[in-house]
Amino acid sequence: MSHLFKIFIMPHPRSLNDVFDEQNLQALRELGEVIIHEGPELTEQEFSEVVMDAHVIMGVFDMPAERLARCKNLRAFINSEGNFLPNIDYDYCFRHGIRVLSASHVFAEPVAEISLAMAIDLGRGITRSDRLMRQGIESYGFAANSEARVLFNADVGLVGFGDLARSLLPLLKPFNVRIKVYDPWIPKMIVEQAGCTSVPLDEVLQTSTFIFILAGVTADNEGFLGEKQFALMQQGTIFLLLSRAAVVDFPAMLAAAASGRIRVATDVFPVEPVPADDPVRQLENTLLSPHQAGALEGVLKQMGRSITADIALISRGLPPMICKAAQPETASRFRSMPVSKS
Amino acid sequence: MSHLFKIFIMPHPRSLNDVFDEQNLQALRELGEVIIHEGPELTEQEFSEVVMDAHVIMGVFDMPAERLARCKNLRAFINSEGNFLPNIDYDYCFRHGIRVLSASHVFAEPVAEISLAMAIDLGRGITRSDRLMRQGIESYGFAANSEARVLFNADVGLVGFGDLARSLLPLLKPFNVRIKVYDPWIPKMIVEQAGCTSVPLDEVLQTSTFIFILAGVTADNEGFLGEKQFALMQQGTIFLLLSRAAVVDFPAMLAAAASGRIRVATDVFPVEPVPADDPVRQLENTLLSPHQAGALEGVLKQMGRSITADIALISRGLPPMICKAAQPETASRFRSMPVSKS
Amino acid sequence: MSHLFKIFIMPHPRSLNDVFDEQNLQALRELGEVIIHEGPELTEQEFSEVVMDAHVIMGVFDMPAERLARCKNLRAFINSEGNFLPNIDYDYCFRHGIRVLSASHVFAEPVAEISLAMAIDLGRGITRSDRLMRQGIESYGFAANSEARVLFNADVGLVGFGDLARSLLPLLKPFNVRIKVYDPWIPKMIVEQAGCTSVPLDEVLQTSTFIFILAGVTADNEGFLGEKQFALMQQGTIFLLLSRAAVVDFPAMLAAAASGRIRVATDVFPVEPVPADDPVRQLENTLLSPHQAGALEGVLKQMGRSITADIALISRGLPPMICKAAQPETASRFRSMPVSKS
Amino acid sequence: MSHLFKIFIMPHPRSLNDVFDEQNLQALRELGEVIIHEGPELTEQEFSEVVMDAHVIMGVFDMPAERLARCKNLRAFINSEGNFLPNIDYDYCFRHGIRVLSASHVFAEPVAEISLAMAIDLGRGITRSDRLMRQGIESYGFAANSEARVLFNADVGLVGFGDLARSLLPLLKPFNVRIKVYDPWIPKMIVEQAGCTSVPLDEVLQTSTFIFILAGVTADNEGFLGEKQFALMQQGTIFLLLSRAAVVDFPAMLAAAASGRIRVATDVFPVEPVPADDPVRQLENTLLSPHQAGALEGVLKQMGRSITADIALISRGLPPMICKAAQPETASRFRSMPVSKS
Repeated sequence: MSHLFKIFIMPHPRSLNDVFDEQNLQALRELGEVIIHEGPELTEQEFSEVVMDAHVIMGVFDMPAERLARCKNLRAFINSEGNFLPNIDYDYCFRHGIRVLSASHVFAEPVAEISLAMAIDLGRGITRSDRLMRQGIESYGFAANSEARVLFNADVGLVGFGDLARSLLPLLKPFNVRIKVYDPWIPKMIVEQAGCTSVPLDEVLQTSTFIFILAGVTADNEGFLGEKQFALMQQGTIFLLLSRAAVVDFPAMLAAAASGRIRVATDVFPVEPVPADDPVRQLENTLLSPHQAGALEGVLKQMGRSITADIALISRGLPPMICKAAQPETASRFRSMPVSKS
Repeated sequence: MSHLFKIFIMPHPRSLNDVFDEQNLQALRELGEVIIHEGPELTEQEFSEVVMDAHVIMGVFDMPAERLARCKNLRAFINSEGNFLPNIDYDYCFRHGIRVLSASHVFAEPVAEISLAMAIDLGRGITRSDRLMRQGIESYGFAANSEARVLFNADVGLVGFGDLARSLLPLLKPFNVRIKVYDPWIPKMIVEQAGCTSVPLDEVLQTSTFIFILAGVTADNEGFLGEKQFALMQQGTIFLLLSRAAVVDFPAMLAAAASGRIRVATDVFPVEPVPADDPVRQLENTLLSPHQAGALEGVLKQMGRSITADIALISRGLPPMICKAAQPETASRFRSMPVSKS
Repeated sequence: MSHLFKIFIMPHPRSLNDVFDEQNLQALRELGEVIIHEGPELTEQEFSEVVMDAHVIMGVFDMPAERLARCKNLRAFINSEGNFLPNIDYDYCFRHGIRVLSASHVFAEPVAEISLAMAIDLGRGITRSDRLMRQGIESYGFAANSEARVLFNADVGLVGFGDLARSLLPLLKPFNVRIKVYDPWIPKMIVEQAGCTSVPLDEVLQTSTFIFILAGVTADNEGFLGEKQFALMQQGTIFLLLSRAAVVDFPAMLAAAASGRIRVATDVFPVEPVPADDPVRQLENTLLSPHQAGALEGVLKQMGRSITADIALISRGLPPMICKAAQPETASRFRSMPVSKS
Repeated sequence: MSHLFKIFIMPHPRSLNDVFDEQNLQALRELGEVIIHEGPELTEQEFSEVVMDAHVIMGVFDMPAERLARCKNLRAFINSEGNFLPNIDYDYCFRHGIRVLSASHVFAEPVAEISLAMAIDLGRGITRSDRLMRQGIESYGFAANSEARVLFNADVGLVGFGDLARSLLPLLKPFNVRIKVYDPWIPKMIVEQAGCTSVPLDEVLQTSTFIFILAGVTADNEGFLGEKQFALMQQGTIFLLLSRAAVVDFPAMLAAAASGRIRVATDVFPVEPVPADDPVRQLENTLLSPHQAGALEGVLKQMGRSITADIALISRGLPPMICKAAQPETASRFRSMPVSKS
């Protein structure tokens, strides 16, 4: 069968080598014919000649129903950008058994890793102490730690219980923390099986010393963490924003940090790059991270391996198991998602 | 029996309330008579009147053989400072069944916690990126991460396999790291049972991306990590000094960081406070921490609870199980230990 | 919305109370109108009156395309029997966004539990020693253990890497075993992320001291473990059949046990109940289990809770997350499955 | 130094090859001179000629103070039988810095392994069902499981929190059990750090579905589990006796099993071998094990490796770390211990 199996790859906006190493490409070629289309453009003629009869397509170009209808062999369209963008007619795909896949799960581990370190950093004053030492105004020993919060045995809150949370959980586990979770899309049973407690948002905010914001943006949750929510938090709460700037009311968050009520780490900003004169750059009680939590070369290679493994399954008539498949119920909600977190 | 059991506590140089909360003191009082001696001095007369017939003594004052010989009831001397100092005649104690105890193990968890965060910080550039953002010269996303090292699946080296290493191991485990250990005092069997590999020092240095220095100072290992050892490390090695400044050749370490060959985090310095004009304060590729890794209020309270639990065992004629007991074979080697890490 | 949401439940061949306790039923009723149809029969008229407009149906009755086409509201059909039976037109469902769900995952934990105990039983001779003591011919201590195999540090093979294997893995983990996996449907990447090694079937059979057969029957694997495969196993191999009798050549398995080459535990038999005079009943080197590995009351209640949680998601327009959804690629292969393992 | 270091080994009642393989012996010989004395007798002359100047002695022969006083080099006496027997003057050793060591910890893992399997066996009816199938009177599926107890999420009680309990804990952990512990020698803090709850004996007995008896016999606890204690247990409690027959009132235990109130597994009996006509051999609700839980060849080899590793440390002037050292406070209590569990 494999001599008939056709894989079309248009890596833009990434480059082919970012995602696939030579071993990966070789593995793909053993599955069938691999057509690679570099560059940002794809003409109609190219579409007709090399895309239309592919069994698997990877790319982020437009795939309206009329194009999909011409792809008679198509079994899976893999979004290489990492989000479910509105580039494809999801309903057509669901009705016709075409999988729409994303390998965005690969970003979860590096984001979890840096989240954990940022939490301890704010709790224990790592970056702050380094800054004070460079300024020559540090304290030592117990005097340096008068405001310290340890993660061991702490109350931890997770807002969002998707891939990021699942990757963070095993890292938190040896710290013997109690974890409360708010995620309106996830049933209590799943939260409890993971050893956490499912609670309303307010309870997460009121009772947690460390709060990790891990929720993606949906039609429903834009800016849902605002002045009122920050007011619920305890003095000294450590608040970590790892997913999307749009889920918080950013000025309210910064005001809470400026006042000294909470400490904030953020990997995302409403505008990136942050304007040169943005006052956030000089804010106390904050740890600033230039959208670097997941954007690692090794992660893209892991994306390539994930995609290759799923294409291998698809080529054998089996369902993909590693990438995330778009679901009829949620595709439309996610479609409005802003630009990729990567 | 308990009405006869006598506990003498001289908390100096700490204060009583640093170590014991009210609940702890109450628990001690239920075991017997508790005599608390505040202040730094202890006269001969006071010794004769209130120390001499104690069953358990906690303090750091001088206990030569002649004094010990007068303590007919003494079962345990608990060093509240955290190290086995040369204040007591260890040989006399060993020959007469007097336990010399230290609760220094309580520092291990907070040091492990901050060590992990510092490792990820240097690997992922957390403090560095925050500094660049405050200077307005940050890069974003993949550009920010061109030198990043992730801890997941990394090669990790531990130099020293005592309390600190045992507390760090469970925190490292979910990162799926391969761990090589150098500790000449610990048998291979123990290292392997902990899921690590026991190797010579040079192999740790040559093959690890993250190297944690967790060894205490002994008569044998002062400055044992010098220019030659730093030369063995790979480009980009992340080197974390958490135990004692004296185990490394400090200038050699800083030179290796300055050259860009390695990145260094250190919680300890040859002279503390660090002199105002010490060039270490402006060094690149370093993360500076003012001896704050273990010095937490909560830790002293944990020390108090540990000591209380062991005194309870001793009062019942059972061996202590939580504090560390000085051993005949090693007491003399540790006696030269410099000032407390706390 | 919930006043319109309609849930039709026909529990046969189970009874309603087997699956749902009162708390569960109450939770279901809070989601919408719950229609319960007891008994084994469902007339066309009943179908028209109470099934046709349901949003969720639970049952195992026939649902050909013509019936499905009349169910305009239908979002999910939940098979309460535990397998994907050929009672429903899967293709119709896939094309029309109707989820076909099964809660068979609930059987995995109890089967894993008993599997582990059976493995240790055969390795250490638990049932055998009990039998010898009742016969008055036991040996003691080392003499009792001359043929013993410990699970600690053993080589373990898993044939099949689905729900059963995933539930068994955490139980095996503290025994520090090396695990080799054969499952032609599962990519190497998934096996490796679980800390196991993906190998060909022959390697599993040749190198494992404990072999767990956890694969369901498909069109492809009937009787795939036969005389040739048993001949590959080492002397003293412990062979555990937990999934389906049909995946092995049963007489070949019993012959290998009778010869003393391997030890066998089986929870399944080609004919159940086993005929009274079946020689398997007197076979040495075997541990016989009357299809009891998963059939626990508490498990059915867990099934009820899983179903309820997923119906709650569906009622809110979210995808189910707990039950297993039939997949276009594999539904036809599983459709031929024999009678339920429960 | 090693050419002067002398190791005397008298393996009786074991044989040399039971404990040491060739690799081990070679490792010992690299530490110093190894004198092996086979056979059960040791004359005074032999003692003078080959034992008296040894640095380390392994054996179980008599070592009163007068003999010890002649052993000027002696640093450690290693009991190869596995218990602290009254063969040696412990007080003399404590006063003179001679370690008395035992490698009995090696039995803990295999005992834990079989304990876990026996608990599941009684809970799920493994041995019982096998017996019924051989008798031709088995039930199937749910009918076979009407009395089943699963270990997942169960209430577990541990009586005794020494080596056995520590080896059992990690095996229980993936079953998500709640563990209550009774051990009067172990402080609450240690129990809690292990994730368990320290409670009075009666609470363990009243609230646990699975009760593991893991306590050694001391002067204080002989027969402490009697009729009154068995009466506290719930209907259907699963009671596992793994340590010593003498800690329970054996007839009371068997009566509780005979009545159907509890199910009992026992690896130990008041008289071994059990008399041919002992009614225990036909008792229902029991799982009988002929003192085989720890007596494995591989365990003795592990003992040999442990001893060798500790002798290596001792030869370098370091404290032993793997074997258990007799403690002044408890040696006299254990001295009355009955014959070895092995």
